[in-house]
Amino acid sequence: MFTETGKIYLYKALLHYKVKELVTVTFLKIGYIGTTTLVEALLDERSSRTDLKMRVVSSGVNMDEAEAETVSRIATAIESDLYVVITPNAALAGPKKAREVLKETGKPIIAISDEPSRKAMRNLPEEGIGYIVIYGDPMIGAVTSFLDPVEMAIFNGDVLKVLSVTGVLRLIQQELDRVIDEIKEGKKPTLPEIVIDKATALGASNILNPYAYGKAMAAFEMARQVASLTTEGVFKTEDRDETIQKVTAAHELIRQAAKLADEAREIEKSNDSVVRIVHFKSGDRRKKVGLYEKY
Amino acid sequence: MFTETGKIYLYKALLHYKVKELVTVTFLKIGYIGTTTLVEALLDERSSRTDLKMRVVSSGVNMDEAEAETVSRIATAIESDLYVVITPNAALAGPKKAREVLKETGKPIIAISDEPSRKAMRNLPEEGIGYIVIYGDPMIGAVTSFLDPVEMAIFNGDVLKVLSVTGVLRLIQQELDRVIDEIKEGKKPTLPEIVIDKATALGASNILNPYAYGKAMAAFEMARQVASLTTEGVFKTEDRDETIQKVTAAHELIRQAAKLADEAREIEKSNDSVVRIVHFKSGDRRKKVGLYEKY
Amino acid sequence: MFTETGKIYLYKALLHYKVKELVTVTFLKIGYIGTTTLVEALLDERSSRTDLKMRVVSSGVNMDEAEAETVSRIATAIESDLYVVITPNAALAGPKKAREVLKETGKPIIAISDEPSRKAMRNLPEEGIGYIVIYGDPMIGAVTSFLDPVEMAIFNGDVLKVLSVTGVLRLIQQELDRVIDEIKEGKKPTLPEIVIDKATALGASNILNPYAYGKAMAAFEMARQVASLTTEGVFKTEDRDETIQKVTAAHELIRQAAKLADEAREIEKSNDSVVRIVHFKSGDRRKKVGLYEKY
Amino acid sequence: MFTETGKIYLYKALLHYKVKELVTVTFLKIGYIGTTTLVEALLDERSSRTDLKMRVVSSGVNMDEAEAETVSRIATAIESDLYVVITPNAALAGPKKAREVLKETGKPIIAISDEPSRKAMRNLPEEGIGYIVIYGDPMIGAVTSFLDPVEMAIFNGDVLKVLSVTGVLRLIQQELDRVIDEIKEGKKPTLPEIVIDKATALGASNILNPYAYGKAMAAFEMARQVASLTTEGVFKTEDRDETIQKVTAAHELIRQAAKLADEAREIEKSNDSVVRIVHFKSGDRRKKVGLYEKY
Amino acid sequence: MFTETGKIYLYKALLHYKVKELVTVTFLKIGYIGTTTLVEALLDERSSRTDLKMRVVSSGVNMDEAEAETVSRIATAIESDLYVVITPNAALAGPKKAREVLKETGKPIIAISDEPSRKAMRNLPEEGIGYIVIYGDPMIGAVTSFLDPVEMAIFNGDVLKVLSVTGVLRLIQQELDRVIDEIKEGKKPTLPEIVIDKATALGASNILNPYAYGKAMAAFEMARQVASLTTEGVFKTEDRDETIQKVTAAHELIRQAAKLADEAREIEKSNDSVVRIVHFKSGDRRKKVGLYEKY
Amino acid sequence: MFTETGKIYLYKALLHYKVKELVTVTFLKIGYIGTTTLVEALLDERSSRTDLKMRVVSSGVNMDEAEAETVSRIATAIESDLYVVITPNAALAGPKKAREVLKETGKPIIAISDEPSRKAMRNLPEEGIGYIVIYGDPMIGAVTSFLDPVEMAIFNGDVLKVLSVTGVLRLIQQELDRVIDEIKEGKKPTLPEIVIDKATALGASNILNPYAYGKAMAAFEMARQVASLTTEGVFKTEDRDETIQKVTAAHELIRQAAKLADEAREIEKSNDSVVRIVHFKSGDRRKKVGLYEKY
Repeated sequence: MFTETGKIYLYKALLHYKVKELVTVTFLKIGYIGTTTLVEALLDERSSRTDLKMRVVSSGVNMDEAEAETVSRIATAIESDLYVVITPNAALAGPKKAREVLKETGKPIIAISDEPSRKAMRNLPEEGIGYIVIYGDPMIGAVTSFLDPVEMAIFNGDVLKVLSVTGVLRLIQQELDRVIDEIKEGKKPTLPEIVIDKATALGASNILNPYAYGKAMAAFEMARQVASLTTEGVFKTEDRDETIQKVTAAHELIRQAAKLADEAREIEKSNDSVVRIVHFKSGDRRKKVGLYEKY
Repeated sequence: MFTETGKIYLYKALLHYKVKELVTVTFLKIGYIGTTTLVEALLDERSSRTDLKMRVVSSGVNMDEAEAETVSRIATAIESDLYVVITPNAALAGPKKAREVLKETGKPIIAISDEPSRKAMRNLPEEGIGYIVIYGDPMIGAVTSFLDPVEMAIFNGDVLKVLSVTGVLRLIQQELDRVIDEIKEGKKPTLPEIVIDKATALGASNILNPYAYGKAMAAFEMARQVASLTTEGVFKTEDRDETIQKVTAAHELIRQAAKLADEAREIEKSNDSVVRIVHFKSGDRRKKVGLYEKY
Repeated sequence: MFTETGKIYLYKALLHYKVKELVTVTFLKIGYIGTTTLVEALLDERSSRTDLKMRVVSSGVNMDEAEAETVSRIATAIESDLYVVITPNAALAGPKKAREVLKETGKPIIAISDEPSRKAMRNLPEEGIGYIVIYGDPMIGAVTSFLDPVEMAIFNGDVLKVLSVTGVLRLIQQELDRVIDEIKEGKKPTLPEIVIDKATALGASNILNPYAYGKAMAAFEMARQVASLTTEGVFKTEDRDETIQKVTAAHELIRQAAKLADEAREIEKSNDSVVRIVHFKSGDRRKKVGLYEKY
Repeated sequence: MFTETGKIYLYKALLHYKVKELVTVTFLKIGYIGTTTLVEALLDERSSRTDLKMRVVSSGVNMDEAEAETVSRIATAIESDLYVVITPNAALAGPKKAREVLKETGKPIIAISDEPSRKAMRNLPEEGIGYIVIYGDPMIGAVTSFLDPVEMAIFNGDVLKVLSVTGVLRLIQQELDRVIDEIKEGKKPTLPEIVIDKATALGASNILNPYAYGKAMAAFEMARQVASLTTEGVFKTEDRDETIQKVTAAHELIRQAAKLADEAREIEKSNDSVVRIVHFKSGDRRKKVGLYEKY
Repeated sequence: MFTETGKIYLYKALLHYKVKELVTVTFLKIGYIGTTTLVEALLDERSSRTDLKMRVVSSGVNMDEAEAETVSRIATAIESDLYVVITPNAALAGPKKAREVLKETGKPIIAISDEPSRKAMRNLPEEGIGYIVIYGDPMIGAVTSFLDPVEMAIFNGDVLKVLSVTGVLRLIQQELDRVIDEIKEGKKPTLPEIVIDKATALGASNILNPYAYGKAMAAFEMARQVASLTTEGVFKTEDRDETIQKVTAAHELIRQAAKLADEAREIEKSNDSVVRIVHFKSGDRRKKVGLYEKY
Repeated sequence: MFTETGKIYLYKALLHYKVKELVTVTFLKIGYIGTTTLVEALLDERSSRTDLKMRVVSSGVNMDEAEAETVSRIATAIESDLYVVITPNAALAGPKKAREVLKETGKPIIAISDEPSRKAMRNLPEEGIGYIVIYGDPMIGAVTSFLDPVEMAIFNGDVLKVLSVTGVLRLIQQELDRVIDEIKEGKKPTLPEIVIDKATALGASNILNPYAYGKAMAAFEMARQVASLTTEGVFKTEDRDETIQKVTAAHELIRQAAKLADEAREIEKSNDSVVRIVHFKSGDRRKKVGLYEKY
């Protein structure tokens, strides 16, 4: 996305005539995965863009079909150039209904979901919907005997660290930005069809040190393993104490993954090689490495 | 909120006849503080409640007055029993406009915001609006030379850890739950008028070990100090390199605060004294301490 | 294995007349898994037993069929009451040959191997051979571009930490001890048919604190994930750099697993609840918890 | 051992005509020091060498003279080009007897042992035996009240980390490889006469960063201090509780030494300056630094 | 203070004729701040200077006016070229009296104190007294219910780490050295008028990596926050338990600050960029960066 | 020193008539060991005692005989009930001269010094002088190529942590307090004749958890090992680079020792079993364990 020559990186879209000065993106959130918490903020981290208007509509944690439909209707009432629908398991009835409702608008739609969605998602392009499947954004240990609001928030904090450092959030941001750029250029956007596995994620992580890269990849895989443990604990374990053991292990695992992701970033910091790619007012992205460097 | 006698803690509302079977709460989010990311999820961490319907409407990161008005209108169009509006600095024009629009509904409103709001918020009760001011949910280091989407997400992950462990999120959840309980009982709810400083936060943290308590309090104060550094860096520093130094220091500080909060929780874990208070289907909360304990 | 009443735990075998005063166990090692490094030492950690004679014969790292046969022949030449053959992947030709040769002695045989062996191992009881399959003793990142002797030794150090704390080594020791006890009693021993997965391992770990238990279980699962990464890197990846990334990630993962296992044990230490089960001269095992406690 | 010019390091032995295509080395292990666990694996970390056949024979933990003699006889029955006998305290009767038996073969012998052996070992060259004395491979806290199989394995895991990072294992590997090279060349090998103290060890560690070097040296000295504490605790302390305190301190010390060694290696990783020296099929060793570099 | 050209840095004073061969500096210590513990040692870390004689006189922890006067009289009885008076809160009666007594000698005086002194100190130049106000050398949690000698010493250890790494001690040393140089040159010395805030401190820290710089700056600000907490706890809190909570939090905060300072230095070590500036026999300072580098 | 029955611990001296209401102790400091930095503060950590007047006189880092004599003369000019002289290596000419001068006063003298003093100190009682020899207060790495003021201060911070947690400072304080008590009672005080080795130190540490005790003991021994390395590096090594390696290792070792001491204290904190023994106004000491407990 960047030409690597010269100190200043200008996104090529700048060279084109922009058909659209202001793009409206509406995010529809049904239930929660880690990425849900701040997906729209990824597109305008300092709230400076003048080319982008964002709306978010959500049913909170509820994923029922009826709920999904209601909030989808609110979303479709907001005139938008692009819809992004983010949900856990996109194969469930709620998320499915949401996509159906959104499709009525005829606007481009991108569905973002987690690993259990991978089969269902692969069929979306046939319906004209793009998708991003995120491996490494694991289900929480959702059992009464373990999960309370505080535990839930801590888990999400850890997930955010892993998703940030390992390149997941960067990749999502870049794909959404690319689509928005294409809309601004008046093109019919090419919608993403991406499965973010360890290779794709890390490829977007901009981590330079090879050991930091290894640490981040391990953290990513740990996050996937978290999902195995919570899925097993929540859906496949009858004994109450065993359930507690497995979800406890899962939350310890994500905490440890966050620490490993942090280790990876600390190495990059120690080499002053943390790559930063920021949004400018116009929506352009620019990149720098050294912290005191200019874009 | 709990009578401490007996093993089972039943919220007293259970003893009352419930006038309302289903309460709808609409969250209006204008811009971002850390708590914004998952405030509604605090009320139903496992998505099991049958007494509560939640809606979220947001303008994303944008806090302009016009934007605030637009999304507030969407929110008012959703019939709700309670509105919760969460924004940075509640004294700004955007948040102010949002409250004005919401007031037209005549429904109870609770404003949640960060420390710079404290003066403006203290006057809200005169307008019939409740408030929760959160010290310790600090402004991010929002300068082009430093903040990109990845850095932004990492920051929020760290903030979540601090807010979770130090009792901030628990207190917000408990206040919102109390108001919802009162609405369910058919009462005119007493709206919160709370400033969450270190004493109030920690008072809700349920931390038992006194050193863990000290660590959590220190983490809370560190989070406040973060705001001093980002405010200074973003608004009061002209030199570009000095700005970078201050916001970098601020983000290192929140990372360290998160680590200290984590230390506090690890101590509670090592003593198996982590208090869990979960939501049941009915919206009741129950509490336990030992991990294998029953509610 | 212990009656939990009273301060002194005496193994019940003590009450029986011992037919055999001295049992000889010969360990045949073909190639290396983590457990290989000190499996026999588990049975007599202070070199004090007078009831047990141990012999070890090994082909070193080599697992070829011919090599396996040669060293197996040496082993069979040592008159033994029990043979323990420990190898990676028990389905390979070398380990298979080793078992065939040992079977000629007519003596009880126990095969110990890692997760890829699980299918092959399940058929061993038909041949009269007992087995212990260890999930969580993962293959090393055996590629030229990454693995040198130093990296290899570090990996094994980390594996040992995980195997120790999570109960794997304890369980192996207990099973071997049980069989030896039965031989001493003149019985035909019941050979183990055990797959050490997270539940079986942790069940033998004697970890009391539930969060430490969760940490240890997470560490165990991380060790299994290591095997996924090394298997993928070594056998299923063509690109040299990708191979390096995966095996590097795997070794970072085992390092992190070792750290998490260490965290678990530190919690037990902080509560002075580390369980110790030692071998006495007679081969009996006794157990204590508090460090200054007596057996 | 490497010429430092050029990217490819070829061991000079390659230039010679090899008299012997296949060398057999037999390792005789009597009792346990940390190095015992994987000493032979150091010579062929990926099990790829075609020039080397290895045999291991061991009496397990037992060091009695009679036991030593029996297993030595098994070892001498294996036709070998080189014998390596590794034991704790080489001055004891068992190890002594083992050397006597091996000498009957007329083959080159190398004795490897720990610090208490240093006096006895210095006389071995008179008998035509080479030696490697390892400072920093400390005695374990072998008292009933403390040491059980789990504690024993953890200790060995920590010892391995220290020996790996500080250069000890590298030096042993290089010396054994040199002798094997000479045997392959048809020479009468020059047997090592080496005391691995902090200077010799670190000299082989290939650590580049001077602070990492300091950390590793400190870790090495800590490992030696461990031996002081265990020796004092096991042999010179009468009071049971004082004994427990000293051996507990010793095991805490080795754990801390392992952490410091790990810190040293992490610094090298952060600079991508970890030196790797691998064995190729032919037995040659090649060296590289950057992880993605080629040999 | 150093010309950056060439490998050898010679302080310019060397080029001048020295009027005074031996300077006597007397340190008067009334009560304790962190810097008090080794302020004079900063000027001659290896006890090698031949140009400097130092005397210390102190009333220990006592800051009463009478005590201050007595020890000040002892100090004035020591013929000195420079007096350095170091105390907590320079505005109190004791420190004030000390300065009055010292002024009778007509010799140059430098007062060193902590943040609460900043107002009082700014007036000292009118009296001909120089000053150094140290932000980040915080008051201890001096309440009976918390502070004992061990806690006090730990606190000071942590404070020393923060003051060392963040540049505070370096700056004090450089200023005192500059004044001594001027006295040696026969000049009337320009006395310092310095407030060591985060910018001034870090400016003297010689930290090169920008993230390490951020960590150190955060550590400095944490140390200031410690003072807020102890001041509040000791002087403004009536409830005993709340007092304990605040001072406990303060001491946890300084511990965490010390850890962050340590992280900063570890990064510099990993890059071999720790700057060292040593005193030579003559009192000259020389600087180097790489550890094996020469001055 | 405390009767363990009852919640309130009153020092028995309280029951006696006090002959002396105010005791004056003069500390004479010649050169620096770690304990030097705050030895007098140990006796009155909150500056509240009304029964004790303290004076400190010091020659700073200089230990020359002439310097020692001069400052000793200043000390003798201060009428004192007790002299405490603290120096490195008490066998050197400077410290020796200091004792000679102090002896002229006829007052009780206690000499405090480090491990190299142990021989010289054992003869002091013959001269009527008491002594405290501190193992574990190690010499710094005092070579030009390594030690600058910042490194020196960091080292002392680490040493303070080790001395505090391991019981060294507690023991010194208790001994000095005991002697002061006896002086107050009008008795001829029994002067201490103590060598603080690991057993004596830890015995005064009040650490309850046995693993924390082990960690602290290990930290103490590490501090002694630091002295071995600095002594070797400074006095017995000719090569400049080897000297740097050894003193660098020594400073890494004390840093690691401080971390281990910190781990020990954290365990005590996690169990709320940190023992606090504070000085009251009257000079009495009282003890408590739980943080919220009363004395």
